[in-house]
Amino acid sequence: MSMKISFDSQSILIDGHRDYLVSGEFHYFRVPPEDWRRRMELLKEAGGNCLATYVPWIIHEPEEGRIVFGDQPKRDFARFLETAGEAGLAVIARPGPYQYSELANHGLPGWLVKDYPALRAKKADGTDLADGSVSYMHPLFLEKARRYYRAFAEIVRPYLASNGGPVAMLQLDNELTGIHVWFYGPDYNQETFGFGTDDGRYPSFLREKYGDIAELNKAYGTSWASFAEARPLTDAKPVEKARSDRDYRLCYLRQTGEYMRTLKGWLREDGIAEPVCHNAAGPAMNTFFREAAESLGPDFLLGSDHYYTLNQLWESENPTPSYFFHAQLSCDTMRTMGGPPVVFEMPGGSPSDMPPILRNDLLACYMTNLALGMKGVNYYVFTGGPNFPDTGTTCDLYDYNALVHADGSLNETYFAAADFGRFLKSRPDLLTARRVASVQLGIEFDAYRGACGASPEQELPNAAKAWEFAQRGLLYSLACSKYSSEYVDLEKPLDKSRPLLIASMAMMSQKAQRNIADFVLDGGQLLLAPCVPKYDLDLAPCTILADALGLPEVTVGGKFGRVFEYDGLRLYQMKGLGSIDNATNAETLVTDTETRRVVGCRVKAGKGETVLLSFSWNAVLFTQSEMLEGMLAAMGAKPAVESSNRNVFTTLFEGDDGRQTVFALNLHASPQSTRLIVHRDGKTVKTLDLHLDAMQVQAVDVG
Amino acid sequence: MSMKISFDSQSILIDGHRDYLVSGEFHYFRVPPEDWRRRMELLKEAGGNCLATYVPWIIHEPEEGRIVFGDQPKRDFARFLETAGEAGLAVIARPGPYQYSELANHGLPGWLVKDYPALRAKKADGTDLADGSVSYMHPLFLEKARRYYRAFAEIVRPYLASNGGPVAMLQLDNELTGIHVWFYGPDYNQETFGFGTDDGRYPSFLREKYGDIAELNKAYGTSWASFAEARPLTDAKPVEKARSDRDYRLCYLRQTGEYMRTLKGWLREDGIAEPVCHNAAGPAMNTFFREAAESLGPDFLLGSDHYYTLNQLWESENPTPSYFFHAQLSCDTMRTMGGPPVVFEMPGGSPSDMPPILRNDLLACYMTNLALGMKGVNYYVFTGGPNFPDTGTTCDLYDYNALVHADGSLNETYFAAADFGRFLKSRPDLLTARRVASVQLGIEFDAYRGACGASPEQELPNAAKAWEFAQRGLLYSLACSKYSSEYVDLEKPLDKSRPLLIASMAMMSQKAQRNIADFVLDGGQLLLAPCVPKYDLDLAPCTILADALGLPEVTVGGKFGRVFEYDGLRLYQMKGLGSIDNATNAETLVTDTETRRVVGCRVKAGKGETVLLSFSWNAVLFTQSEMLEGMLAAMGAKPAVESSNRNVFTTLFEGDDGRQTVFALNLHASPQSTRLIVHRDGKTVKTLDLHLDAMQVQAVDVG
Repeated sequence: MSMKISFDSQSILIDGHRDYLVSGEFHYFRVPPEDWRRRMELLKEAGGNCLATYVPWIIHEPEEGRIVFGDQPKRDFARFLETAGEAGLAVIARPGPYQYSELANHGLPGWLVKDYPALRAKKADGTDLADGSVSYMHPLFLEKARRYYRAFAEIVRPYLASNGGPVAMLQLDNELTGIHVWFYGPDYNQETFGFGTDDGRYPSFLREKYGDIAELNKAYGTSWASFAEARPLTDAKPVEKARSDRDYRLCYLRQTGEYMRTLKGWLREDGIAEPVCHNAAGPAMNTFFREAAESLGPDFLLGSDHYYTLNQLWESENPTPSYFFHAQLSCDTMRTMGGPPVVFEMPGGSPSDMPPILRNDLLACYMTNLALGMKGVNYYVFTGGPNFPDTGTTCDLYDYNALVHADGSLNETYFAAADFGRFLKSRPDLLTARRVASVQLGIEFDAYRGACGASPEQELPNAAKAWEFAQRGLLYSLACSKYSSEYVDLEKPLDKSRPLLIASMAMMSQKAQRNIADFVLDGGQLLLAPCVPKYDLDLAPCTILADALGLPEVTVGGKFGRVFEYDGLRLYQMKGLGSIDNATNAETLVTDTETRRVVGCRVKAGKGETVLLSFSWNAVLFTQSEMLEGMLAAMGAKPAVESSNRNVFTTLFEGDDGRQTVFALNLHASPQSTRLIVHRDGKTVKTLDLHLDAMQVQAVDVG
Repeated sequence: MSMKISFDSQSILIDGHRDYLVSGEFHYFRVPPEDWRRRMELLKEAGGNCLATYVPWIIHEPEEGRIVFGDQPKRDFARFLETAGEAGLAVIARPGPYQYSELANHGLPGWLVKDYPALRAKKADGTDLADGSVSYMHPLFLEKARRYYRAFAEIVRPYLASNGGPVAMLQLDNELTGIHVWFYGPDYNQETFGFGTDDGRYPSFLREKYGDIAELNKAYGTSWASFAEARPLTDAKPVEKARSDRDYRLCYLRQTGEYMRTLKGWLREDGIAEPVCHNAAGPAMNTFFREAAESLGPDFLLGSDHYYTLNQLWESENPTPSYFFHAQLSCDTMRTMGGPPVVFEMPGGSPSDMPPILRNDLLACYMTNLALGMKGVNYYVFTGGPNFPDTGTTCDLYDYNALVHADGSLNETYFAAADFGRFLKSRPDLLTARRVASVQLGIEFDAYRGACGASPEQELPNAAKAWEFAQRGLLYSLACSKYSSEYVDLEKPLDKSRPLLIASMAMMSQKAQRNIADFVLDGGQLLLAPCVPKYDLDLAPCTILADALGLPEVTVGGKFGRVFEYDGLRLYQMKGLGSIDNATNAETLVTDTETRRVVGCRVKAGKGETVLLSFSWNAVLFTQSEMLEGMLAAMGAKPAVESSNRNVFTTLFEGDDGRQTVFALNLHASPQSTRLIVHRDGKTVKTLDLHLDAMQVQAVDVG
């Protein structure tokens, strides 16, 4: 048999038919071979149609040059692929070079990281970055990895879907950049980035961007004679330092894309034509791969990893509201990057015994992702087993509290996956159903990419503040309102039929400023808070947006009273940034009741309007949602689902046939009740009374 | 009627009879007077026997010198006390000066903070610390506050319990130090601390400690001519800076105690002889009041505030395991300071609409505190109402999502309090029952007091690291074991019948070192990790403990393998600090399997033994609990309750009559099951199978 995997912007297609990808991470190098088939059947019974596995370099090239695949049953990857084929399951192969997977050296062979110090990732000061952390595009690393990829290709080729086998997709590396940024920051390996070399990656990046060394010197406040002389600034004035940091970050990310294209190229050279994929390490890292995704072409699928806890130090122990917001950001950004949202690592367990991974939480987690538009999932891990000798970093027996235990017995959590699988089977219509978003939510993508660290004016929001306001302020307040939201890419075409809300910072790209201005002039409705961008992303003055829309200036600073007022609504706990003092042609919307300063106004421009607020907030009170509801109604937004209990979140889907499905989410540890009013085109179409258990997500077919 | 409140080390006594204190915070200045009595009856129906209320200065002295109490119904404190008396409820009056309570200026009159800049709290650089933040012992502040206290006394005197009225206890200020440390750090007001003045508080503190200026100069590396010249060091070498920081912190805390004694003195001067109390702002702040509690005498009761969430930025949304650990620390430290654990602010709601405060979570929270030995509670708030004009900072209608809504209707959470009240009534025996602790847990109390910031050797643990290991490592691992634990004061007599576990840092007081050495020499069993203290708290070399017990040195640093081994148990994810290399007379207990370095040993001294581990951990795996179980069994510890599901925590109580009660706690959002084996004196006395709902705490009378 063979199962080809393809995808378009809507969903995954399996053998050309739209279907959910339901995959289970299944490590042949851990699971006892005699139990492979039985556990594969268990996955199928839980609704699975695919397996995923790392193919760890550390296990298959124990000594340099000795690449072994079939010498013992747990290294017999070919036999595993045969078994998968017999079971009728597709396979996503993840040959690294990195695997992580709680393996020594993050999955790299010991000889590689010990015997070749040159290929290690470096800090800015030239010292090693961390144990087992290598420099992706270092020629020596690529040379060694190439040999392993070739050997891997030899094994996998007969089992490719295009050859009638199960191997339907291949993952390029694993959670890219993590090996650097989790421990320190970007890699500064001299040979990889070519400092001092005229055609090195970093000098070339700068030349491409600045053209002339004089331009670079102007931007950086330096006096270099050539691009080869240029180095990332470690000690400079804030603005110059921020420019250099941003450039280096972008250069580093571009190198990551080059690395992905290199790995993909190797597969193609070796005759593997199947689609390729990658898993961002988490919701905030998806946009790291924005350029890579574009350059890798339509046979590349970006997914993300959506854990809610891996140990007691995580933000939450359960899929709480903040998990919902992270998952929404992730699903939305995957969509804006062209693919269907796919979660390549969805908790199937945890490497820690505490906090526990429990059935109820897991099902709520799976349903939450579905409620946000997820079209494919890979449970990490579906099942485990004893670690290959001397490769484990966290345990001998890699049980992972997984859906199927290391000893082959069923975990109670298996039934969460089985329930979820059954639900997916019953709702193929959701594959093409569209999540209804009343409003578009925007934030400069570079704010997520680590490429916008500092604001040129300390008082104006930087990336971190914009991110916080977007997630903890706007998104949370909207989740408690009757207006649903989705993140959009501010540099791509915007939908004039729906308002656009932006958590702004001091900087915004020229392209986004132009795009948003056009959107408004052409009839779009914009809500901008808490400031009007004054710079482009390179921290050069740039007021395209303000100029085009005639936006008044926000006078930063000053004291505020305790209460703002909007349309009779008294607003507490807002974070004033400043006031809007000289707004000619602007209608006052929000005032500080004590100082009478204007902190919100409406400005017309062309066929559209802008609501400008000079304050932000963390979601604390429902009055903040009420304020947004008032403003959005005036902007012509169409409500989705109204929940009488605002702490019960909802999402709404509309199928091709107009069929509506509401997801009601109680992401709290106690039961909650609510009355839902479902809207369509501004009219009430249904009222539902729901009682939800602790951590329950319920889908209701509204018809 | 009158209801006198007293207390001893075991419990509260009401009118001389042991009883739980069940109080509801009830603001006469918010709740509509016509509904006072009805809501008081609702509190009684929920098991309440007491009211607590702030008596806000901001409300009663709106203009300087114009002190008004009875001019309008919502300022009529006397009428409120009458009503309380009629309802048969005791009253805890909290006259401040500070109230917080989401009031403007944290409850201080506007004229005070605006017209008298001299009395504001200051940063080290002499600038104002924060809005509405004053210097406690500033003479001008005391002068103004004295006048208010006197007026308050006039009103309250007829209603004192000693005069047959309901007022049974008075709170001195509110969440002391919070107004400074939350916003910046200690207050440095020049006049309060007397910098430059020979008999100023700071010079006097230093003189008392160092005796001679030469000694101070030696310790600080300074060359001051007199104590009057001394200033807290802002720019010095790490050790000298740490000494100065510690001294200043202790001087600041001593001033806090002086302030409390001053307030208590005023009450006594004005003829109020009722007991006084204070509420630490949270579990980690209880020990701030260690010296104050001693100097205030036996009619002072220290309580603590135990919220689990007040907005989305809190660590958790529910009473999760980490809440349990904080609550245990708090209840245990209150007990070591001599009083029964009382929670003076227990969530009765939240000022934020999200995350929601729900019935199930609340009951789990109340029961968790009871399971840790709490003997009294004050729900903050039981009920609210409209804010007094121009005094609210978070809302107009102070509903607080409280047990009884601002409009007088019952919140569903009211029934959590009612259920809890019913449970308390049914179990008076728990008032004197003793929580069984298999082991004593120790950490230098000054590590909590902010008076141990820096370690003299960077590699050795400082206070923050010791705290983290105590809470996230030892306490969590013990909660997942069959051995129960309680925090003890290392400077007070220790119980030789139970092992003592210490999360150590580089420093330990001379007194504690001597006390612990005596404990071991006299037959005690000690487990010390991850280091042997080498300094006293003033960062002078001090090896009393090591010398007395013949403890080997821990050689800090070096590489570790992935696995430690103890008695056949393979231990992953331990944080090695160093090795124990030259341990003559020591028995090896734990080794690094790769390097063969010794990382754990047993050393005999006198009649006792020390287990020294040169590593720490965050609780990640149950093997860590198993390791402790092995070591503790060998040390003669007696198990309490064994839970087959280690993520179900337990506590065990033994009554005067030997009756045992087990609390089983599922502090997770999904149901969990377990089999419990209850021990007494090392023997199994009962086996119980339990199924617990999400966030359920169940008490089982074992007989």
